[in-house]
This record gives sequence, structure tokens and C-alpha cells, in this order.
Amino acid sequence: MNTCGLIVEYNPFHNGHAYHIQQAKKKSNADCMIAVMSGSFLQRGEPAVIDKFHRAKAAISSGVDIVVELPFVFAVQSSDLFSKGAVLTLHELGVDSICFGSESGNINNFIQGYSDFINQQPVYQDALKKALNEGLAFPEASRKAYQSIGLTTEDMDLSQPNNILGFSYVKTILENQLPIQPLTIKRKSSNYHDSEITGNIASATSIRKQLFEHQARLSDLTHTMPSATITALMEYEEKAQALHHWESYFPLLHFRVITMSLEQLSHIHGMEEGIEYRIKKTAKEAKSFHDWVERIKTKRYTWTRIQRIFVHLLTNTTKCEIQTLTSQSSVPYVRLLGISQKGQDYLNTRKKKMEVPIYSKLSRDVHPMLEIEERASNTYYSILSFANRYTLQKQEFMGPVLLK
Amino acid sequence: MNTCGLIVEYNPFHNGHAYHIQQAKKKSNADCMIAVMSGSFLQRGEPAVIDKFHRAKAAISSGVDIVVELPFVFAVQSSDLFSKGAVLTLHELGVDSICFGSESGNINNFIQGYSDFINQQPVYQDALKKALNEGLAFPEASRKAYQSIGLTTEDMDLSQPNNILGFSYVKTILENQLPIQPLTIKRKSSNYHDSEITGNIASATSIRKQLFEHQARLSDLTHTMPSATITALMEYEEKAQALHHWESYFPLLHFRVITMSLEQLSHIHGMEEGIEYRIKKTAKEAKSFHDWVERIKTKRYTWTRIQRIFVHLLTNTTKCEIQTLTSQSSVPYVRLLGISQKGQDYLNTRKKKMEVPIYSKLSRDVHPMLEIEERASNTYYSILSFANRYTLQKQEFMGPVLLK
Repeated sequence: MNTCGLIVEYNPFHNGHAYHIQQAKKKSNADCMIAVMSGSFLQRGEPAVIDKFHRAKAAISSGVDIVVELPFVFAVQSSDLFSKGAVLTLHELGVDSICFGSESGNINNFIQGYSDFINQQPVYQDALKKALNEGLAFPEASRKAYQSIGLTTEDMDLSQPNNILGFSYVKTILENQLPIQPLTIKRKSSNYHDSEITGNIASATSIRKQLFEHQARLSDLTHTMPSATITALMEYEEKAQALHHWESYFPLLHFRVITMSLEQLSHIHGMEEGIEYRIKKTAKEAKSFHDWVERIKTKRYTWTRIQRIFVHLLTNTTKCEIQTLTSQSSVPYVRLLGISQKGQDYLNTRKKKMEVPIYSKLSRDVHPMLEIEERASNTYYSILSFANRYTLQKQEFMGPVLLK
Repeated sequence: MNTCGLIVEYNPFHNGHAYHIQQAKKKSNADCMIAVMSGSFLQRGEPAVIDKFHRAKAAISSGVDIVVELPFVFAVQSSDLFSKGAVLTLHELGVDSICFGSESGNINNFIQGYSDFINQQPVYQDALKKALNEGLAFPEASRKAYQSIGLTTEDMDLSQPNNILGFSYVKTILENQLPIQPLTIKRKSSNYHDSEITGNIASATSIRKQLFEHQARLSDLTHTMPSATITALMEYEEKAQALHHWESYFPLLHFRVITMSLEQLSHIHGMEEGIEYRIKKTAKEAKSFHDWVERIKTKRYTWTRIQRIFVHLLTNTTKCEIQTLTSQSSVPYVRLLGISQKGQDYLNTRKKKMEVPIYSKLSRDVHPMLEIEERASNTYYSILSFANRYTLQKQEFMGPVLLK
């Protein structure tokens, strides 16, 4: 079977994602589509709107055959570690290609870009160092560094978030010499950060904004998402009596910070350059999550970077844990979240060749990475009432969503 | 001026406390009454119903001249450390006597009891060890040990909570050869643990029970408390929009436990003999605070012991912190919570002779013990909404309640 890998968050799964699957299928000529998806918390340092199982279910209903989890230790990270975890996971599953969305839709630009990047390392590194010394945040500094080696042109514009992620995937594949063909398709309208909904392709950001800031009902958003997503969102909301967003976690996060010493804070992953002093100091006056991040934000500390630190604070994830668990050159296991009949057929043949175990449900004392996974999902559910939390936590031990 | 010290919690201040002050004043012949009072969290491991400033105000209105804080590191402890902190604080303030309530009301029984206790140490220690090895909880084991040296007779019954505390005060005074005269008055009806209200002397336990379990209104309890207490309770409830009890802290406590490793839990003060495994294991099924303690409770782990561990977990207080801060032979400062005009007059003359500073408001970077104090009070207020929390936290930096 020809298999194509996708790297996704589906927060939530919308028409743009469905389009991406269709196009990727066409481009890769694959029979079986495999997605590696962030779990409870997402790359930009946010809780997912609904849990991973309901998101996986929506994806399986819309054409993905296998959904596996991007481990938490890789998921809430900047593009390099995020890509490493995602690409290595897809590699364990033996994908023939990985297809991602980009602005240009031309894979040669990425491959050429990678070669330019390697050949001009000293120039890039110098420019990066200089920009960081000027006090710029990493994304802005690296944009300047890419500019210095000609990677911010229209063909290959590494100032665009989706291009940066795509470039990281290509880089991971080429650096590790993996037998995976990188593919890209041109993105259709709606930028990553767009918050307006126009037509039936809306960004996930705009859908979340409608839900949380404009109190839109799910039934008002049916033109932007497949019905399977609407069903999944409604099902989850019924079980949890909530959709998840940062503000609900504010009391817990605040409580954690006021009861931790500066020294304890400094061990949390992402806590660099004394940002813990700023977090501690602003805690006293923070009225809400949004207000708190606004108070911490500086030129160097972007909103996303602060949110990621907050996810690691909330889940009590230390530098030491992340370093130990992400430094290997392979992932220690693959965890199944959802699967179709075709996905099962593929996995039955693939299993024998796999070098790491496939877990279809959480079980204890298996691997430190799974322990953190459990901690992250317990944290994710901790804003719910006892009965709802208890029901949803049980999912973790019940195995993947199965669609025939 | 002749001064008499009282060791109190006033949770909340009731008619029995007013009676105690009157009687103590008579017995000691004192002009000035000084109370050392637990702050946000109490000896039995519970949050105080209202904050320390409003409790101090009620006490000053009812005849106490100076209320100082028993530091958190001494307050949530079994009788020995609790007594040490309380007696040493009163000693810094130069009290001539300390007067406590007891079942017999005869101080000679306590002094004779201490002498018996010292003279029969080997017998006591053997009996204690034996009882602990049988798996008994400490209170029960020490009751057996006291029995072995004749200290559970009607005259001197160390199976009664109030007698145990009184005995600890006498022990601290005599062991440290402090120039303080121990005095005791006979308690009037209502035992410490009594939960029924009969007549106008009710235990604080019964008043809290009426408030939280029977949803009594404050106005229904006016016969058990002076009007100043009712006013203080109402004032605080208006500011905080809450009265405090353990159930409100359950989500925070639960969140803390699920995000801490067993190793991190083992550093928390009070975590002994692997109880952290039991706490972690039961967290999954705990429906409420009450339900959780019930699940953890064993013959050896009493309700009170578990509650104390939970206070230290909630406030993130480590074994190392408690050990460092409670091992000195004096307290590092005295912190004023409330004072009358007479109290001020006394303090003006006393100040020159004091060996440690008096703090009338919280200020930063003064002493590690005060840092923990701030953490404890921040934790105490963390269940409130931002605006109410912010207002109440400000009190800590505003100085004591002053009544002319």
C-alpha cells in the first residue's frame, strides 16, 4: 500500500483540512493516509478545543485512515522539535511520503532552500546571533537570518508560519536521510493567523475565535466544518460540559505560580533568561490569562513563547524531562488515536516491520514519555467537574476510535 | 504592666473565647492580654473560615489587646511544634503568664504531670514505640504511652485534645526555663470536637458545621458569638464573596497532586512512610475533598494528619523549609495582626527590650519565614475571584487592625 503522512493539529478539523487530505491523496497517489496529531496541548501553547479522541474521530470520518499521537514532549515546541517528533513518528509507520501545505506549493523551492541553508550556515548563524543580540524574539531573528541567505523571497518565504513548518519537515527528512518523499500543496485562501471567516474555508484560529470571543453556536459554523466535526464537537461538549480554552485554566496556572519558588520555576521547560522573575512579578496583578500574557510580553518574549512556557508550567514539565525524552534519534513508541478499516489492514502488514511498539491504549509504567502523556491529559481535563473528568480520563485506557 | 498570653485560633471567635479571656484576666490579674493566633491555616490542617485580620479585629473588640501571628511554619503542626512557636512568640513579647483552658482547671496537675513525664521517660518511650509498631496513629499511641506513666487519670487526662495542648505549653515553658507563669482555667461545657450547639457556649467546630453543612445564616448564630464576630464574618464575606472551607480548595489540591511526581510529593512536609503513593493512587477516584480524605485514611493516618499534609501540599511547603525554620531556639520576628490603645502603650515600652523585630506589615525579602507566610496567604486567597483576591491580599501590606 502506498501511504502518505500528514502532520496536523485539527483544532478543530475544518473544510481546509478536508481539502488538504484530498489534494495530498491526489498528489501522493496514496491508498492510506496517516496523520500524526498533537494531543491535549498544541504547538502554539494552547489547550485543544476538544480532546484528541473526538478530533481523531472527525479526521477518520473525513478521509484519514490512521491518526496517531504526536507525543506531548514534541507537540508544544518550536518547529524543530515539533518536526522531529512528527516526522520520526510517521517514519516508524513507514510512510512513503509526507505532504504539507505551503504558500507556493512547489517542493523544489523547499529542497533548494534546504541546500542554500546548509551551504550558507556561517552567514545564517552570524545574522541570527546578531539579531538575537539586538533583543529580537527568535521568530523575528530567524526571519532576518533567512533573509540574509535569500530565503524570504516569494518562492521560498520563511517568514510565513506554514512555510517554516514545511521547511522543518523537509530539513528533518533530509538531515536524517529518511526514505520519505516530501510533497507540498498550495494552501487555499485563509492564512494561519486569519481570524475572519470568509467562504467555506476558514482557519482553525477564526473558528475558535468565533466560538470563544463571539460566542458563536456550533450550529452557526456548519459551513466551515464537515458535519463529522460538528458532531464530534457537540458530543465532546455534551460529555465535558465545556470546550477548552486558556481562560478556564487561569486559576490553576495562577495558583501554581504563586505557590512555586523562583528556583522551582527555573526548572520548567522554556524558562530562560530569567523570565520566571517576570512571570512571578506579574502574577499579582494578572486579571485573566489574556491580561497576564499581555503583562509578560516583550520584544523577545512573543505571545506563543509565553503560552508554551505556561503549558509546561501547568503540566509541571521540566527542562530535564524534555531534554532526556527528545534527544533520541527515534521515537520510543507510536500511540494510536483513531483508525479506519483500511488503516487496520495497513497496520496489520506494517506491524511486523516496526521497530517500536504500537500502543492502542494507555497502560502504566511503560515509558516515561507515556507517563508525561497521562499527566498532560489529566491536566487537560482538570478544569472539568469530577464526573465528567472521570469519564473522559477513562477514554485514555480504552483504545483508539475505530471506524469501519 | 502585667501581661497574660493566650494561644488561640479563633475560628471564629465565640462566646467560649470571650469567657476564656475574662477568666484568664481574673486569674492572671493582667492589665494587658496578648494572643498569638494561627493565620490562614489552622493547627488541625484546615483553612480558617475568614482571614486573620478580621479574626483579629473580632478578638480586639472582645478584650484582647494585642493579636500577633503564629507563623505558618509552626501553626499547622502537631502539639510540640505548635506550642514551641506559640510560647516562644509570647516570650518575645514578655508575657508574665500564659493561661490556657483545660478539663481540670488545676495547673499543679500539669506541673506534676511534666515532672512524671520527665522522670519516667524510658517507660513512656518504650510504650510509645510499642504502640507505633502496632500500627497505631500517633495520637492514639501517645495516649497509650501517657497511660503507661499514669497521665490519663481524671486529674491529668492526656487523652483530651485541650489537655494535650496545655501540657505542651507547660512543657515548652519548663524545658526552656522561660520566666512565664503557666495558668489554667477550667473549660466550660462544649468539648473541642463537639459539633452540637447547646446554649450560648458552642465550640468553633459546631459553628463551622452549622455554616457549611447546615447552611446556617450568620444571623442564626448570633447567640453563640459576640456581635463583633458576626460583624467581622459578614464584613469578610462581603469582601471575599466567600467563607473558606476545604471543599473550595479541592480542585487546586487535586490539580497539584496529579501534576506532581511521586518524588516531588515525597519532599512535602508531613509526607512519611510512603503516604504519597496512597495520595496519588486515590486522586483518580476522589469526588471531593471529604471523599478523598476518607479514601486515604487508615489506622495510622488520621483525618487531622492527612489534612495537615494537604495544607503543606497546597502551599508547596517542603520538609527542608520546615526543618530549617523551626529548629531555632527563638522566633525570628513577631508580626502584629491587631492592637488596642492599651496594647500600643504596652508595646511602646516593651519594644526596646525585644530581641527580634516587630513587623506591622508584610514587606518583601525580610525573612524566609515571612516569604512562606506570603505564599500561605496567597494560597488561602487563591479560591477567590481576581478583584476580591487582590483587595484582600493588599491587607497584608497595610499593617495591623487598630482599635482605639
